[in-house]
Amino acid sequence: MAPNNTSEDQSASFTGRASTGAPELKQWSYHPRPLGPEDIEIEISHSGVCSSDIHAITSTYGPPLDRCCIPGYEIVGKVVAQGHNSRHQIGQLVGVGGVCDACGDCTECHTGFNQMCDKRTMTYNDTYKDGRGGVSYGGYADRVRVNGNYTIRIPAQISPAEATPLLCAGITTYAPLKRYGAGPGKRVGVVGIGGLRHLSIQWASAMQCDEVVAISTSDNKREEAKQLGAAKFINSKNPEEMKAAAMSMDIILCTAYDKNQPWADYLQLVAKNGHFVLLAAPELSFSVPGMVFLMNQVSLVGSLIGGKESMQEMLEFAATHNVRPWIEKMPMSDANAAIKHMMEGRPRYRIVMETEAASRG
Amino acid sequence: MAPNNTSEDQSASFTGRASTGAPELKQWSYHPRPLGPEDIEIEISHSGVCSSDIHAITSTYGPPLDRCCIPGYEIVGKVVAQGHNSRHQIGQLVGVGGVCDACGDCTECHTGFNQMCDKRTMTYNDTYKDGRGGVSYGGYADRVRVNGNYTIRIPAQISPAEATPLLCAGITTYAPLKRYGAGPGKRVGVVGIGGLRHLSIQWASAMQCDEVVAISTSDNKREEAKQLGAAKFINSKNPEEMKAAAMSMDIILCTAYDKNQPWADYLQLVAKNGHFVLLAAPELSFSVPGMVFLMNQVSLVGSLIGGKESMQEMLEFAATHNVRPWIEKMPMSDANAAIKHMMEGRPRYRIVMETEAASRG
Repeated sequence: MAPNNTSEDQSASFTGRASTGAPELKQWSYHPRPLGPEDIEIEISHSGVCSSDIHAITSTYGPPLDRCCIPGYEIVGKVVAQGHNSRHQIGQLVGVGGVCDACGDCTECHTGFNQMCDKRTMTYNDTYKDGRGGVSYGGYADRVRVNGNYTIRIPAQISPAEATPLLCAGITTYAPLKRYGAGPGKRVGVVGIGGLRHLSIQWASAMQCDEVVAISTSDNKREEAKQLGAAKFINSKNPEEMKAAAMSMDIILCTAYDKNQPWADYLQLVAKNGHFVLLAAPELSFSVPGMVFLMNQVSLVGSLIGGKESMQEMLEFAATHNVRPWIEKMPMSDANAAIKHMMEGRPRYRIVMETEAASRG
Repeated sequence: MAPNNTSEDQSASFTGRASTGAPELKQWSYHPRPLGPEDIEIEISHSGVCSSDIHAITSTYGPPLDRCCIPGYEIVGKVVAQGHNSRHQIGQLVGVGGVCDACGDCTECHTGFNQMCDKRTMTYNDTYKDGRGGVSYGGYADRVRVNGNYTIRIPAQISPAEATPLLCAGITTYAPLKRYGAGPGKRVGVVGIGGLRHLSIQWASAMQCDEVVAISTSDNKREEAKQLGAAKFINSKNPEEMKAAAMSMDIILCTAYDKNQPWADYLQLVAKNGHFVLLAAPELSFSVPGMVFLMNQVSLVGSLIGGKESMQEMLEFAATHNVRPWIEKMPMSDANAAIKHMMEGRPRYRIVMETEAASRG
């Protein structure tokens, strides 16, 4: 029978762990898009579990899924096939982050922000805008085909497993620090818990910021923060500690996103001309004080992953400055256990799932 | 009788229009500080009326005044005396803005933000931090003494009266446009009414921005906005106009400051990586949507007047690009009428009060 959908290559079948709305993932196979001239096919060895995957699976921010969704946009694997215009090498190790395609020709693409291109395709649960049709499926699978121009080289110094979380959690935290000038003379704060924070602290330390401060609602993070390189810890529920730190940080990365966070208190921590950067955001509106913006010229700004150039730079920086995520490895065949572990907030700090290809090295 | 206060020069007496908490200003005289080595004494010819003066007089943002307050921080006049380290010329025309003194040695002073120096002295109703004691009195007066290092040269192309509003309204609008890259390729929006807007539109036009958009709740500003150089007008109460303009402006200057402004609607107008700049701010908290920050990397930021270097640059720019405020002149002897006119929101767009010195030229 002839293929009834030209956006599918009926000769190929990839198998992954898919959600159709319920948190429970099931084994499911699909026909990928035909290999385009710029595309590469990747045999996936590692796939990270990100909280965004949970949001997608449980439809936190949108209507229930109306199609099968294979999550995963922290993907590492080897090139096993490529289109005729691709300049990759078979066997080359590559990474895929949150965006697998973009137009390459708009202001955002030209200025290093292809992740904000109007015609971008998110790595999973998105429809392609390149005219070839089809839906994107992510990294909880044995293989994936993507536009090779949006894949990242993995430096030899970083193991494939450790490179994996850098492709989302890493770039999400690295990009705003670089954009807002983290380095000597700057003081950086990090609000919130978990994977994004543990990398934020490491980047800021490696960038030789004057001070790296962990800000948390719970004192039990104090020791961990120190191990990761945060010289200072502030319990945001302690008014005296918060007051003593007023206007003392040039950049604060905020990974917290429930709307009842003490936003006014956080904003008071930002130094004159400083930036309070949302790496996640409340779905609903939240309340902020007016005067702190005006009197201190504070900026409240969001940051969304990063462009492909930033991602490559970030991996090179991690390689040379020895920044590595703390990871827990789990087999992809236990994807549901990984999701459960994540939903319980237990990983320290990122889960990387391994496929059978990982054992083959 | 020997002077009982070393911060007062008993040999000199300046006369102004002072408030003690009631909006009604009364004639009142004071002994200025002794002329310090860097100080200059200015015979005031012109003094602008700013909405901040109204806030001070009516104690909008603070406790009632506990001392006589001579408002006014848009001051133009001639140097009539100077300290031994001052390099001004007697008879030279100078301007004074919102800040009349700063430490000159902190990060903010070194980076062009002396208006944010911890040791700054606001031009009126402030206490000096330079160790010499005393209180600052503003420009609704015949004379003033200030640190000459914080005064601005008035270019010959600009009349003293027209230079006056530039010293607050001008720098407040010019500085953020420059900071956030206004110029060819950029689209600028201006929210709100009155003096700040009419200068914002002129600056953005003179900077050759691609598009200058006036955003107002009232259609009756449409024609005025066009005259000032705004090619486009959006009625913010018209959902279709607002929707059509979504994500279309790189910089929006916002002069509105009541907390019930449609902040979410305004923020949707900001282009990717754009800036929504508060030039005034709600005293209380206000509500903003989370996702627009994250998805569009929009920045909500405040801007507070400008540093002395920016002020000088701004006046030179106004001189060469023919930016001039629309002013209404009134005699300083009618200061109360000027205040009343201002409180009724009637000036088109800035009031400049003239002293007797103005008539002497």
